[in-house]
Amino acid sequence: MITVYGYSSSGNCHKLRLLLGHLGRQPDRDFRWIEIDSPHGATRTPEFLSKNPNGKVPMIELDDGRVMVESNAILAWLADDTPDSRRRFFAGDAWQRAQTLSWMFFEQYSHEPYIAVARFICGWTPLDSPRRADLPRLRERGHQALAVMERHLATSEWFSSAGYGIADIALFGYTHCAGDGGIALDAYPAIRGWLERVRAQPGFVPMPPVAAENLALIAQSE
Amino acid sequence: MITVYGYSSSGNCHKLRLLLGHLGRQPDRDFRWIEIDSPHGATRTPEFLSKNPNGKVPMIELDDGRVMVESNAILAWLADDTPDSRRRFFAGDAWQRAQTLSWMFFEQYSHEPYIAVARFICGWTPLDSPRRADLPRLRERGHQALAVMERHLATSEWFSSAGYGIADIALFGYTHCAGDGGIALDAYPAIRGWLERVRAQPGFVPMPPVAAENLALIAQSE
Repeated sequence: MITVYGYSSSGNCHKLRLLLGHLGRQPDRDFRWIEIDSPHGATRTPEFLSKNPNGKVPMIELDDGRVMVESNAILAWLADDTPDSRRRFFAGDAWQRAQTLSWMFFEQYSHEPYIAVARFICGWTPLDSPRRADLPRLRERGHQALAVMERHLATSEWFSSAGYGIADIALFGYTHCAGDGGIALDAYPAIRGWLERVRAQPGFVPMPPVAAENLALIAQSE
Repeated sequence: MITVYGYSSSGNCHKLRLLLGHLGRQPDRDFRWIEIDSPHGATRTPEFLSKNPNGKVPMIELDDGRVMVESNAILAWLADDTPDSRRRFFAGDAWQRAQTLSWMFFEQYSHEPYIAVARFICGWTPLDSPRRADLPRLRERGHQALAVMERHLATSEWFSSAGYGIADIALFGYTHCAGDGGIALDAYPAIRGWLERVRAQPGFVPMPPVAAENLALIAQSE
């Protein structure tokens, strides 16, 4: 059984739950989810750091003790470590698979550090946090990332020419909740259409509800 | 022939030159290198943005017009799109290949945004740039990334258990020149030993010399 260490309101962690859903893997039968309260320091304990010195979730652990970190690498492993009929989530030839990775590196470098961080600041820091001064810059860069996605989706159904897969899952992670960070999707019709296509995929699992205290902070954020 | 658009002093771009060297690919025979002066806006021209809307190098273009961006995705393609004897640079089973990707995502998320950006600020911004106020924080986070690498290298020769490959190349990109950003490697003997092992690999290509104006800024940086 795979053990997933994750924080349910994290888009990076939700990516794994989403792919596991598409793969038909059942909680408590095929994997166990251990909730890690990362906003309150649970990834900084000596025990956690002994498994992931970089102090981040998600992390997976196999029964033999092997550990893997980095959400997008875990997606690649889950998609490849399945019967061929399921390998479609990381499908294609060497070029198509590398294009899938290209979008996943885009997500971690040009998208997540702005869209996810803006959301974190809005919902997981006090209303008087000095970090809120970063929001205008983060939102500007977040919109730049969304514009790159919108342009691709104007002529493409998915982020890989081989079909729906782990690049879409990686980008769905924080795009679907960009509004929590004050980054509205109104100007991106192609992205909104793509989000609906993702939600219509068999086995789709929505992100669990965000806690009331975080929702309240999001609602009060400017 | 592959066309590589790159800025020679960029560690992200140098990764490609390094793997091409290991693969025995010769400049002007197997690939052409087009120098892009990214610090002076050459990735923001309409022509460049029409090929990469994200406005970054490196980028590769094939003779049929296909384009790929994101240094680490290009490494994955170059390593996979070669005869099996050469596929050793992205070798192993699904787990080992995903672990290779894990280190490459670590590089882009937890290493490059600090170590490469500190170097850029030191060598490519004026001495009175307000961005220099970020240097202490960037250096602190850079050292955190180096500590994670040091811990891995204390018991491992390379970043993939399948041997020297694209994870090492990705991390070499900016680790070898971390000192340019004021991030010394003195406290990391395992990293320094690994850098020497990388330099001893057949086909290793050193980064071309940094321009005098940038070296002068680096020398004057605090």
